[in-house]
Amino acid sequence: MSEVKKVVLAYSGGLDTSVILKWLQDTYRCEVVTFTADLGQGEELEPARQKALKLGIKPENIYIDDLREEFVRDFVFPMFRANTIYEGEYLLGTSIARPLIAKRQIEIAKLTGADAVAHGATGKGNDQVRFELGYYALMPEIKVIAPWREWNLTSREKLLAYAEKAGIPIEMKHREGGSPYSMDANLLHISYEGRHLENPAAEPEESMWRWTTAPEKAPDVPQYVELQFEKGDLVAIDGERLRPHELLAKLNELGSKHGIGRLDLVENRYVGMKSRGCYETPGGTILLKAHRAIESITLDREVAHLKDQLMPRYAEMIYNGYWWSPERRALQALIDTTQQTVNGWVRVKLYKGSVMVVGRDSPTDSLFDPTIATFEDDRGAYNQKDAEGFIRLNALRLRIAAKLEQKRGA
Amino acid sequence: MSEVKKVVLAYSGGLDTSVILKWLQDTYRCEVVTFTADLGQGEELEPARQKALKLGIKPENIYIDDLREEFVRDFVFPMFRANTIYEGEYLLGTSIARPLIAKRQIEIAKLTGADAVAHGATGKGNDQVRFELGYYALMPEIKVIAPWREWNLTSREKLLAYAEKAGIPIEMKHREGGSPYSMDANLLHISYEGRHLENPAAEPEESMWRWTTAPEKAPDVPQYVELQFEKGDLVAIDGERLRPHELLAKLNELGSKHGIGRLDLVENRYVGMKSRGCYETPGGTILLKAHRAIESITLDREVAHLKDQLMPRYAEMIYNGYWWSPERRALQALIDTTQQTVNGWVRVKLYKGSVMVVGRDSPTDSLFDPTIATFEDDRGAYNQKDAEGFIRLNALRLRIAAKLEQKRGA
Amino acid sequence: MSEVKKVVLAYSGGLDTSVILKWLQDTYRCEVVTFTADLGQGEELEPARQKALKLGIKPENIYIDDLREEFVRDFVFPMFRANTIYEGEYLLGTSIARPLIAKRQIEIAKLTGADAVAHGATGKGNDQVRFELGYYALMPEIKVIAPWREWNLTSREKLLAYAEKAGIPIEMKHREGGSPYSMDANLLHISYEGRHLENPAAEPEESMWRWTTAPEKAPDVPQYVELQFEKGDLVAIDGERLRPHELLAKLNELGSKHGIGRLDLVENRYVGMKSRGCYETPGGTILLKAHRAIESITLDREVAHLKDQLMPRYAEMIYNGYWWSPERRALQALIDTTQQTVNGWVRVKLYKGSVMVVGRDSPTDSLFDPTIATFEDDRGAYNQKDAEGFIRLNALRLRIAAKLEQKRGA
Amino acid sequence: MSEVKKVVLAYSGGLDTSVILKWLQDTYRCEVVTFTADLGQGEELEPARQKALKLGIKPENIYIDDLREEFVRDFVFPMFRANTIYEGEYLLGTSIARPLIAKRQIEIAKLTGADAVAHGATGKGNDQVRFELGYYALMPEIKVIAPWREWNLTSREKLLAYAEKAGIPIEMKHREGGSPYSMDANLLHISYEGRHLENPAAEPEESMWRWTTAPEKAPDVPQYVELQFEKGDLVAIDGERLRPHELLAKLNELGSKHGIGRLDLVENRYVGMKSRGCYETPGGTILLKAHRAIESITLDREVAHLKDQLMPRYAEMIYNGYWWSPERRALQALIDTTQQTVNGWVRVKLYKGSVMVVGRDSPTDSLFDPTIATFEDDRGAYNQKDAEGFIRLNALRLRIAAKLEQKRGA
Repeated sequence: MSEVKKVVLAYSGGLDTSVILKWLQDTYRCEVVTFTADLGQGEELEPARQKALKLGIKPENIYIDDLREEFVRDFVFPMFRANTIYEGEYLLGTSIARPLIAKRQIEIAKLTGADAVAHGATGKGNDQVRFELGYYALMPEIKVIAPWREWNLTSREKLLAYAEKAGIPIEMKHREGGSPYSMDANLLHISYEGRHLENPAAEPEESMWRWTTAPEKAPDVPQYVELQFEKGDLVAIDGERLRPHELLAKLNELGSKHGIGRLDLVENRYVGMKSRGCYETPGGTILLKAHRAIESITLDREVAHLKDQLMPRYAEMIYNGYWWSPERRALQALIDTTQQTVNGWVRVKLYKGSVMVVGRDSPTDSLFDPTIATFEDDRGAYNQKDAEGFIRLNALRLRIAAKLEQKRGA
Repeated sequence: MSEVKKVVLAYSGGLDTSVILKWLQDTYRCEVVTFTADLGQGEELEPARQKALKLGIKPENIYIDDLREEFVRDFVFPMFRANTIYEGEYLLGTSIARPLIAKRQIEIAKLTGADAVAHGATGKGNDQVRFELGYYALMPEIKVIAPWREWNLTSREKLLAYAEKAGIPIEMKHREGGSPYSMDANLLHISYEGRHLENPAAEPEESMWRWTTAPEKAPDVPQYVELQFEKGDLVAIDGERLRPHELLAKLNELGSKHGIGRLDLVENRYVGMKSRGCYETPGGTILLKAHRAIESITLDREVAHLKDQLMPRYAEMIYNGYWWSPERRALQALIDTTQQTVNGWVRVKLYKGSVMVVGRDSPTDSLFDPTIATFEDDRGAYNQKDAEGFIRLNALRLRIAAKLEQKRGA
Repeated sequence: MSEVKKVVLAYSGGLDTSVILKWLQDTYRCEVVTFTADLGQGEELEPARQKALKLGIKPENIYIDDLREEFVRDFVFPMFRANTIYEGEYLLGTSIARPLIAKRQIEIAKLTGADAVAHGATGKGNDQVRFELGYYALMPEIKVIAPWREWNLTSREKLLAYAEKAGIPIEMKHREGGSPYSMDANLLHISYEGRHLENPAAEPEESMWRWTTAPEKAPDVPQYVELQFEKGDLVAIDGERLRPHELLAKLNELGSKHGIGRLDLVENRYVGMKSRGCYETPGGTILLKAHRAIESITLDREVAHLKDQLMPRYAEMIYNGYWWSPERRALQALIDTTQQTVNGWVRVKLYKGSVMVVGRDSPTDSLFDPTIATFEDDRGAYNQKDAEGFIRLNALRLRIAAKLEQKRGA
Repeated sequence: MSEVKKVVLAYSGGLDTSVILKWLQDTYRCEVVTFTADLGQGEELEPARQKALKLGIKPENIYIDDLREEFVRDFVFPMFRANTIYEGEYLLGTSIARPLIAKRQIEIAKLTGADAVAHGATGKGNDQVRFELGYYALMPEIKVIAPWREWNLTSREKLLAYAEKAGIPIEMKHREGGSPYSMDANLLHISYEGRHLENPAAEPEESMWRWTTAPEKAPDVPQYVELQFEKGDLVAIDGERLRPHELLAKLNELGSKHGIGRLDLVENRYVGMKSRGCYETPGGTILLKAHRAIESITLDREVAHLKDQLMPRYAEMIYNGYWWSPERRALQALIDTTQQTVNGWVRVKLYKGSVMVVGRDSPTDSLFDPTIATFEDDRGAYNQKDAEGFIRLNALRLRIAAKLEQKRGA
């Protein structure tokens, strides 16, 4: 165990990170700086300050930051420019928040002269990788403490005993076994893992879902919403321009109301195992559909196909924790270049769990020209006879091969 | 215009291909063989025989084939093994039928000693390419007649006049302007193009959709369905083993009832323009979801990711008409290799337009082992400490670069 | 044949384009503007002016431009940033010149108010595609005249007869059957096609090669050369900073002297046939090796691998004529982003046909730090024990699958 | 340290693995089985048996296997079917041998009832990964001992002291500091790392190279060699059919004589660092060139391009140690499918370090038909006019975008 003087802990204020806080003090005998971020997870953050103070953290060592706008503007939106989706389904709600937490944690380490950072992710998951790759990429000499990989508090009982001894308040739910799920929430999504979900054959209980109305209980009347895009980013909903995080919050509200964005998935973790997760991504689900739709009229075919072919790798980079890598930045340069013309609006219909695109237009950048037929007849842009040559040359290699085949057969 | 002795025409029995039939006789003065395929489009085919006879086709020159099983078994299912989807949305219902029609048409050309084939696709669309690439790949010396690119019947009026003169019966709907949409149907989907849809800003009329119940009118109670897979192909629904086309028909019935599989899309045609299409793919939409789900527990991560990365190109090959190309076959070899272990069942919930996977298992091939945690603790398969080394080596290149960056900055 | 008022002809001053010039005047009865570019092909251009004047072109309609610097700076160098190579071998010497010619031709069309452009490429090759895609992308309403696809001068005899009648001077070599090869040259390469080469089993005659000394006759003593790179581009040779085209000319001189850069290839044309070409790319062959070498120490692994994976598509885009397409620009954005750190020098050894990299360094950007071992020991950047966890987690999915396999076997 | 009963050691008979042998006996107090493979490294293997006996290994626990044929047939040749090359240069000579060693080692473990395997690779290199991923994939419950990551013999001095104490004979060269390079050899290549090479700016000494004649000392007269391929694999040289390993040995002889296959490279290791390696791959260098050449006339364009695009990932899989992974097998299925028609011969010219392809033909599978021009004229396979339509439709999307651009500009 290396020597540590001051550590910045990603601190939620909950039981686990409170135990970590105490354990860091006990084990490393170092000064602890707590960092609590508002990413739109929907919890009050001031209680975290009180708890930290009670656990002996100096006021100047408590950082509570509202990162919601930065989160959506600099992480969520760039990711959606690529129509990013992991393993065909997952919108990467947890993955995309980690690089920002790592970035801010390192900034605080630099501000406070800390020589270490710590997080509360376990040794079996992806989040440890996402945090730590971020730390190392942004401050290569930093010491990383991952208590779940180090300590011997390997059961819930031991953890609770440690908390009790340390005077950390334990809520009733923890004593009773706590929430049955391991959850993570931010403006983009809320996720559930563990417990009942560990049997992928079984349907999750309806009571698990926290954000979205059940489709069965969603309004009986569909709702139409218009999304406005500029350079590939959402800028307004139903004509109202808002800041990025406000837009996503608004979309979440709309999606949740209509039961949109539930996902039940078995995914492949970077650390090598399969795991079952359930997700609610109401706003993101709408945004993805709408972004594809605005691209459908403003993006060149080959550019769109190139993006589609590169997307799975881009998603993999984010899922695996390589946001701060040069390969992700290189792909982002390509993606962002393509979004200059992605301007216009999309209308979607929300109804009992589904989003349907029903209209789209771009006054400035539509490559779908309603007059194209006419254009072609008059100006010779399209001559049906051209298709013959097009087909014949595209077929040439197939014909040559088929002729050879015949010769071989004969 | 080259000399032609005998031509095999892809003949639907409708007005357009009847006019083509007549035009071929008039223009090429050649013998015409008609070929009508049952791909599950839901129309009776015997009337096509009667019409052909009336137009002077000899009985032995009339081919009417039920290709439904072959269509689903050898075309639809192989395509679904790849989770194929074009431009993020389109399930390729039209594209995947064309290669089979081309194949059978060429078989008939060989059987009847024909030296030419003809089809009724226009010069602006993808279908001409798909048909003709198939023809040329399977019979490189064949002559191809594409009347829409050759004749001067360039308006509806001229076409009707020609029909009238030729004694082709014209149904009332054609006189009145006909169906407002250009449609194509088979067991996988029905598509709509043209007319009102040429304005991509406008929502399609509810009356356009022919197969699916509107989500708003679908049953208020969700329905659960269990799909059984073997080697990546659907083999049974709710425990009932059926033949491939029967399975797809059954899925269509279920999906249509619950308003599933509607799509409103602007897509990029191979011939270079954007076009707006609407599609109903009820069974296919369920099948895609379920196939991904069974793969999620039976496929290795890297294999799954490789498939995801290659899929857009595979989709492009099918969309563009290259089913019979060697590159499609090479990719298929890869895809089929991966499906050996894709065995098990998936449970989906159908409700008012949406399909949700709620459970999946594979008694023989699940890589998601519920005992894996235990397995790991006991046998050392997973040691949380391993994650440290894993992360540190993955971070090494990032750290080296960051150190250099610091040095440059200093 | 559409009406044309003024046409800009890519004019070399040779027999073929002189005939085209005349044919355009005769056939289209339009004003002709000639455009002759110096791309370093090593021919004097003033004779082209004289010929044009003799053929009745007005002095103000004769454009002769030295495009050498632009060619190397804006086309060759960007392409080499991607280590571009077509079908594993071809350095794209012809392909990369076409977009520049098209660009300048269109500029002249705009300057002179021309409504058409013409080129001398045949209907079987790639160059027609490269020219015309460029024209259309840069001036979508332009009329394109491709005489070889239009006229009836389909044999050498007819062409010569036409020339004679038109008073175009015919050199002796043309009367004798001319050079046996179809050639193209610019600062990057010289190419040979046709005649004796049409038998891919036969070795080209030594006399065909025009630029490079035969390896057997090259100096018996190797020569060492040092290339300096900045942001991925060559900036100096043996310490001497020169302008881009001067650098490439210098490299050509060095390569030619040492017999470097000959290539004998069967390649796949975009129009669907295979063709045999021979190429001399002396400087480019050295440059490619050296560029890879400087990248080897300055580029991150994953960035380098991403570039390697995308390169074949980038090469295809250039080969097929899509330089001016949005997909090429998008890829270029990615490529250029990666080259910011590609600074340093490379030493190569040239000897009788081969280039060997023997040393490379980057004082500012090397990710190969000679002190890294020490760095690691002292600072903990590399701990051999980390490798165990790295391997074990990377092996996890393989182990789980193998265990399942065993279970199935049992 | 886990309990071990019997361990199979990859044993070369050299000093290092002899020390490991002793250390295993001392430390784990377990039975040791030695396994020595002949992969064509050019050393006698019987001395290894004598040494093992002297170190107390029971005769029945000594395995010495000639794996040369299997190596070339089942590993080298399949890899060359893909034209595999890592980071643009490296022919993977070391990487491709490791999976076979791992496979045989596991086979012996099963034969002898061993519960562990051990290897002599260090904790900083790729080989540990390649060995261990193989072990785990083939026998997931195996215990792996990697002494270099475990022991404290961290300096040359300590190692020698241990050897001396253990009575292991130490050759003079080791006392003097040993060979200056870390080397690995097999039928495909010999590699050099370490010492003087750790400065990538410095040229390796001529004396380092062991296999190939210096190009400067190679014969002054070029040699022509004809290679015969069947289904993508080399089957004969200059008309002589030999077994796979004999063919590669023959090619090595030819290549070495002519100074072919030297490579000086900085490469990216999987464990995250850059390293400088020098390689001699004389036969492989010839084989790669020739394989590409036979493919150039027998492979469809799109298949060839697909292979080129996938190759870097395939190379990465092999370099990183994933030979036994399902993703490598899936790619191999694709690759092997494409090789059915790769039959014919290639003639190469070897001269002072370079290989030049000078002729190729395939009597049965050439897609380059010398009569194709004629074929086209007579049968209409190629009509120059077709090119117009081909270009115009390919240009359509570019024109639409350019028109929009103009409109925006106006």
